[in-house]
Amino acid sequence: MHQKENTLAESCVLIFGVGLIGGSVAAAIRQRFPDCKVIGVGRDQERLEAAVRAGLLSGSVHQSKLAEVPAESLGVVCLPVHRIADGARQLIGAGCGLVTDAGSVKAPVCRELKIQSDRFVGSHPIAGSEQSGYEHADPDLFADRLCVVTADGPECVSRPQVLRVAAFWRSLGATVTVMPPEEHDRILALTSHLPHILASVAAGCVSEENLMFTGSGYRDTTRIAAGLSDLWASILMNNSEYCLEAIETAQARLEQFRESLLAGDVQQLENLWESAARIRRQLTQ
Amino acid sequence: MHQKENTLAESCVLIFGVGLIGGSVAAAIRQRFPDCKVIGVGRDQERLEAAVRAGLLSGSVHQSKLAEVPAESLGVVCLPVHRIADGARQLIGAGCGLVTDAGSVKAPVCRELKIQSDRFVGSHPIAGSEQSGYEHADPDLFADRLCVVTADGPECVSRPQVLRVAAFWRSLGATVTVMPPEEHDRILALTSHLPHILASVAAGCVSEENLMFTGSGYRDTTRIAAGLSDLWASILMNNSEYCLEAIETAQARLEQFRESLLAGDVQQLENLWESAARIRRQLTQ
Repeated sequence: MHQKENTLAESCVLIFGVGLIGGSVAAAIRQRFPDCKVIGVGRDQERLEAAVRAGLLSGSVHQSKLAEVPAESLGVVCLPVHRIADGARQLIGAGCGLVTDAGSVKAPVCRELKIQSDRFVGSHPIAGSEQSGYEHADPDLFADRLCVVTADGPECVSRPQVLRVAAFWRSLGATVTVMPPEEHDRILALTSHLPHILASVAAGCVSEENLMFTGSGYRDTTRIAAGLSDLWASILMNNSEYCLEAIETAQARLEQFRESLLAGDVQQLENLWESAARIRRQLTQ
Repeated sequence: MHQKENTLAESCVLIFGVGLIGGSVAAAIRQRFPDCKVIGVGRDQERLEAAVRAGLLSGSVHQSKLAEVPAESLGVVCLPVHRIADGARQLIGAGCGLVTDAGSVKAPVCRELKIQSDRFVGSHPIAGSEQSGYEHADPDLFADRLCVVTADGPECVSRPQVLRVAAFWRSLGATVTVMPPEEHDRILALTSHLPHILASVAAGCVSEENLMFTGSGYRDTTRIAAGLSDLWASILMNNSEYCLEAIETAQARLEQFRESLLAGDVQQLENLWESAARIRRQLTQ
């Protein structure tokens, strides 16, 4: 954990993929540090130009025309998980001095870019929304949220590249913690990917004609199950090892519910419920 | 389904259990029909009197002093599921002409009160909150929400008692649907009880020290897992047969996630996700 920063050391940030997250990175920079250049990179030139006209970007480049970029630029790849490594390689190939990303799975990308590890540091700002598209960009999306920055081991934590990426996210209001990519993936399988899987299971067990019998409980619990299927299949598949472990942990707990009910054991059921409720009550909302 | 009503046929409503739901029934009546008497019944005389002073009730009676009540009164039992049948019997014993409830499981209560079926009709307004206590009472809690009223079969739907209870909930702004208690319990096991179980499973798979790595996904999905353990153990246990079926349906779906990940089958994973997302997207929030 480090303190927040009120300055931005970057003079030019390239954002590859200007959707909700990329757009919010742009909005956060533009609002806080109007002198920093923010260049959008992507495959839809029309949408990029519209984002420039909307004031979200100071410029844009089509991904096929990424010829040469200033070496001092920081690249931020905000593409879906399975496209991050490619995007990072393109930015590095064009001369970008240091590249990070915003993907919710870290180990496969860091592994793939190991050979470029002096030019790539992984990030995961734990912030998001079911919405998509830069139209929903929020300059405060990262404010007071945790951002994980990856470093392979204790000896890597103080590498200048890691410090630079950590400072970048703190400038956007985030709190930063540095850890190995595998540890991030193991934890996030439980704190994010598993809740998405269980939300999808809960949503999928209700038929269309019974939706009228749902209340706020179903609505809250299944909200994140409405996400894009290619995006989520890609996240889960890229973290399959830890997701499998998380699913097995959940299966054991679900089986305990079944057994308590089958045995008619109210006390066991209460204990099971309470052990989870106690954890959840530590969050304020 | 029936239309809403702008009149209330009741002159005196007894509310046994003045917590969030009972308090909201009181608030809804007081706001819409100030001429109707609203008497709170319970075991905590001090809290009942405080609710009278707060203007939520027009009077109160301790449950041990329920000697005689006007025969034209409508009783509404808003106690936890395992105490409803007892509460209803007390009101009926004191002379209350017709009693209903607001419990989220219907078959066991209706079975227990079968012998009093000319004086009891089950209800379940599908509305609630993680909050508890009449301090959080909301006069609009039932507005535009569905309320299930139970009737054993088609021949019972037009019984005057069923019509009277249905009219009561419509007066509070609810839309009413009438069905057998078992059908209600089978559906609610999937639309409400299972989401609670899965929310609890998701909450319980995260350790305290990893809570800082949770985002809005975990928060939304597990919100209802913070409920009271005795309340929820009682609801699940009273609907154990259908909850067991619902858990098995969920186990099959969760196992499909595991198998898709294990096989590395992205397409199967996408299909699985999409089949649930399609259902969830039909709800607007």
